Amino acid sequence: MEINCKVLNKTEYIILRSLSASSKTYWDLLLESFDTAANTIAVIKKLLQENVINYDGKYFNLTEEGKKILKSVLKKEYVDVRCKECGGKGINSNAFQDLANQFKEVIKDRPAAIPEFDQGVVNLETVINRIAFMYHKGDLENKDIVLIGDDDLTSIALSLSNLPNKVVVLEADERLVNYINQKARDLNLKNLEAIVYNVEWKVEKDLLNSFDVFLTDPVETVQGITLFISRGCSMLKEKGVLYFGLTHIEASYSKWYKIHRNLYEMGFVITDILDKFQLYELNPDDIVSKGYRVFTEAGVKLSKPEKPWYNSAFHRLELVEKAKPLFDPNQTYKLERDLYYDEEAYVTLY
Amino acid sequence: MEINCKVLNKTEYIILRSLSASSKTYWDLLLESFDTAANTIAVIKKLLQENVINYDGKYFNLTEEGKKILKSVLKKEYVDVRCKECGGKGINSNAFQDLANQFKEVIKDRPAAIPEFDQGVVNLETVINRIAFMYHKGDLENKDIVLIGDDDLTSIALSLSNLPNKVVVLEADERLVNYINQKARDLNLKNLEAIVYNVEWKVEKDLLNSFDVFLTDPVETVQGITLFISRGCSMLKEKGVLYFGLTHIEASYSKWYKIHRNLYEMGFVITDILDKFQLYELNPDDIVSKGYRVFTEAGVKLSKPEKPWYNSAFHRLELVEKAKPLFDPNQTYKLERDLYYDEEAYVTLY
Repeated sequence: MEINCKVLNKTEYIILRSLSASSKTYWDLLLESFDTAANTIAVIKKLLQENVINYDGKYFNLTEEGKKILKSVLKKEYVDVRCKECGGKGINSNAFQDLANQFKEVIKDRPAAIPEFDQGVVNLETVINRIAFMYHKGDLENKDIVLIGDDDLTSIALSLSNLPNKVVVLEADERLVNYINQKARDLNLKNLEAIVYNVEWKVEKDLLNSFDVFLTDPVETVQGITLFISRGCSMLKEKGVLYFGLTHIEASYSKWYKIHRNLYEMGFVITDILDKFQLYELNPDDIVSKGYRVFTEAGVKLSKPEKPWYNSAFHRLELVEKAKPLFDPNQTYKLERDLYYDEEAYVTLY
Repeated sequence: MEINCKVLNKTEYIILRSLSASSKTYWDLLLESFDTAANTIAVIKKLLQENVINYDGKYFNLTEEGKKILKSVLKKEYVDVRCKECGGKGINSNAFQDLANQFKEVIKDRPAAIPEFDQGVVNLETVINRIAFMYHKGDLENKDIVLIGDDDLTSIALSLSNLPNKVVVLEADERLVNYINQKARDLNLKNLEAIVYNVEWKVEKDLLNSFDVFLTDPVETVQGITLFISRGCSMLKEKGVLYFGLTHIEASYSKWYKIHRNLYEMGFVITDILDKFQLYELNPDDIVSKGYRVFTEAGVKLSKPEKPWYNSAFHRLELVEKAKPLFDPNQTYKLERDLYYDEEAYVTLY
């Protein structure tokens, strides 16, 4: 048998995962696939030929052989996370509720965010919604995932889900690196590792071209975000996937335009943008006391925020060209103030 | 009073619309806005100064003056269409159910689609979901909207919603042009007009730079889609908005990449991509009889599709740069076969 989880391509995985839940017509499979008709048809033919699936004249099903393979491929029974209420237009993370509860418990003793490091964490719901969406897109199960910056501790939730093959965190804040590695030891999360890394540093050789998915929630200057994503870009394998957040609050569409153009320069195509998908839990006391422009320039006397308000559009991209990071992975750069701060920065300190 | 629906900018509209439904804190308004903190704050200051809104130390509200203005601005009471079930991650079109029923009734006698013209219509739910999403984004109420190609008859639903200021359809199929204009007369839809136009023709002077929103569901060759969008691009005002659909079935991510790069060349930025948002009602008899490659190359004996399967990712873009259509609006082009057909075309005839 040539097929196992290591060699399955994305479309094979999407089709087999879908068939693991129920029989599907040819037309159903075309609806599920994120690939061209030509490629989807080629995959169906291959799976039929290798006796992984069969066809009864109307429906495709897994064969006994196929079911065996799926047992090693699927770390959890496949669940469709598309929201039933709005006809699949949104993602419903109910299927990950147990994970949410477990994650909440595990990170109770998390280190406080340091706003001076531009740390501002997404809330628990967003961590889980991210995971549900990445799962829906086929970017989680059996994947090697790298994060640059992880004050959200999404890496711990990813690892607790038991879905990824490997989760590596590159983080500048040593407290977080130690915290994540301690949790990995305490909870016996063998696939989770954090390493001290500053995004200005060159990329270690053994990290280059070795991940399927790169997740980051970077600073919002054009230079800064281009540096973050260049680093991740150099670590991605062919057809690697990038997830990141971009706000309206600190980034006009003119800035989005410049950032997106850089992403296309690097060989990425945008596949999904979910506006306001990510919500943040910024410390209300910090917001009113640290001198953020969003507070000082409001022009009216403000109460502390009582619920999440800082938000970002969750972006998903795929490498379609050879990765061309705009910052050379073999070089160290010093951006300093330019890394964090520009004239649109209203919730950023320097 | 300087403020009326003609001069409201997008952010003023979004804020006032939101306040028409309930009081909002400063933080709530930052969460609602699609603009930078700097711009949102400037709008709040202006609206306070012009006595359109007031502030009680915690909440912003419309003044009596503001309520009067909103009466002329809002064609219908503001409804939040974000799905409650999945935490606002999807769009729920329930608020437009009456429109859906009315639209269904009105178009009962629609002309049959002609697959040879690459006509393939989205289903009723998709027409209404499109409208709900465009409404959510602030791209419907009081807007001048142009469509190139409208076999879906979305223009009729748009006009029936009473929200847009003007709806103009440019359509190559004279049957559809006559049908839409007849409905406009029968139903007294004064803001709806259809004109015979082939996308290869140059653009009439009076259509240039005169629309807020351009909606199209174009052919999927790089050349063809670039021509369609160039035409619409030349008709958009500054900061104009583009909506279109792009499939996986007939367009690989490599093709998306080429198309998207052309869009950035023209001065657009992608603001939202909702994958598989649009579902189509292709005639099942045509699918099995017309010789589409999706049928002939399936490799197995197929039943007719029994539910929608052809789908596309709904794209929203905004002009951030001066519009730079890649095809000159003052020129007529002949693309012929290249307009419709490439090696990924599996549900397209030529």
